[in-house]
Amino acid sequence: MPKVKFTIITLFQEALEPYLNVSMMWKAKKEGIAEFEFVNLRDFGLGPHKSVDDTPYGGGDGMLLRCEPVFNAIESVKKKDKTAEVILPTPVGKIWDQRSALEFSEKIKTKRGRKPKHYIILCPHYEGYDERILSIVDHKICLGKYVLTGGELPALIIIDSIVRLLPGVLGGETSAEIESFSDGDNLEYPQYTKPYDFRGMTVPDILLSGNHGEIKKWRDEHSGKAE
Amino acid sequence: MPKVKFTIITLFQEALEPYLNVSMMWKAKKEGIAEFEFVNLRDFGLGPHKSVDDTPYGGGDGMLLRCEPVFNAIESVKKKDKTAEVILPTPVGKIWDQRSALEFSEKIKTKRGRKPKHYIILCPHYEGYDERILSIVDHKICLGKYVLTGGELPALIIIDSIVRLLPGVLGGETSAEIESFSDGDNLEYPQYTKPYDFRGMTVPDILLSGNHGEIKKWRDEHSGKAE
Repeated sequence: MPKVKFTIITLFQEALEPYLNVSMMWKAKKEGIAEFEFVNLRDFGLGPHKSVDDTPYGGGDGMLLRCEPVFNAIESVKKKDKTAEVILPTPVGKIWDQRSALEFSEKIKTKRGRKPKHYIILCPHYEGYDERILSIVDHKICLGKYVLTGGELPALIIIDSIVRLLPGVLGGETSAEIESFSDGDNLEYPQYTKPYDFRGMTVPDILLSGNHGEIKKWRDEHSGKAE
Repeated sequence: MPKVKFTIITLFQEALEPYLNVSMMWKAKKEGIAEFEFVNLRDFGLGPHKSVDDTPYGGGDGMLLRCEPVFNAIESVKKKDKTAEVILPTPVGKIWDQRSALEFSEKIKTKRGRKPKHYIILCPHYEGYDERILSIVDHKICLGKYVLTGGELPALIIIDSIVRLLPGVLGGETSAEIESFSDGDNLEYPQYTKPYDFRGMTVPDILLSGNHGEIKKWRDEHSGKAE
């Protein structure tokens, strides 16, 4: 059984799924660590045009996601797994950071029972969503103080930042623990690889010294703080 | 001629390109507003295996992007357009927000001359990149205080948040100006669409009043601040 299952409710499966088929997300799937499932919101649309949005009460630009398709889509997933929790990427959510990713990954790692931890991610699109949709949401998450055309990229960021922390996904299990933001605002130290001399820019000699104590000291001194 | 051109240097074109083929990014392309181009970093790899990364000097987990493939890939683009500016998504960058997106879109809108504004986005992958790569970068951008498996999703977020602000991409030209984060931490007011009554949850009656002054007042009072 996988450790975690993500069900993504979206109008644009074809735009998201390819990302989950490469690199680490593909590895997580292949190794049976994570499972990804898509639900097409359009299947729950209303009327002959399978409409999922409508104009805002009180006037204003753009279209809003309606309640009925969203509730019906979420409930179709919850009918099969009552424990599934709903995530909504939204500007009014809690700002996502590395600590959030670590908390979610910890919940997944420590879950008891045979079934995987199950998250449903709803991807809003267009201008916004009917406010009443918040009543069915467990986790409101804001990826940053910017606006996007939809919740599709935030959904992938949430998934990627959590899944890469699960055992077996990254090569070295310690990699994820010493990296940027794992302890708040800390940034990783500068890193260098071959060649030693690239167009006159050389690697700091201390890193070639083999003196692990001095190397650690240099790295500590050169670790940064986020702006 | 398009207003802006993005050249994305990545190992995972197949994971990114589908996102640019739907919804607003597709519209921007179709309308000739934005142009997207991919450069496969692997084509600039070294040796028979077209290697692009190597182990860090001084020890440590993971692999780092090497200078040679990155510089050669970027220079192959700049050879055709010297004005192209290089963007690198990195934890040490300036935090991206709606004001950054507005600044970039403003530069695109006000560019003179026949050629589009041209940005090269380098997507690092794996553990990190050789520090000397920063010397060829014009804009270091941090999408948030979290770690991802690579710079692919940040690249799409930068593109999406800029392109949607360009004239002709969104339906109503004013949409982008009254939305969340356009003036710092402000959040858009709650919005409602049909039906009036959804499972006993009703729309605030003021929004049905037709009194535009009162509706504006209600919306101002119910606009939020980001956490």
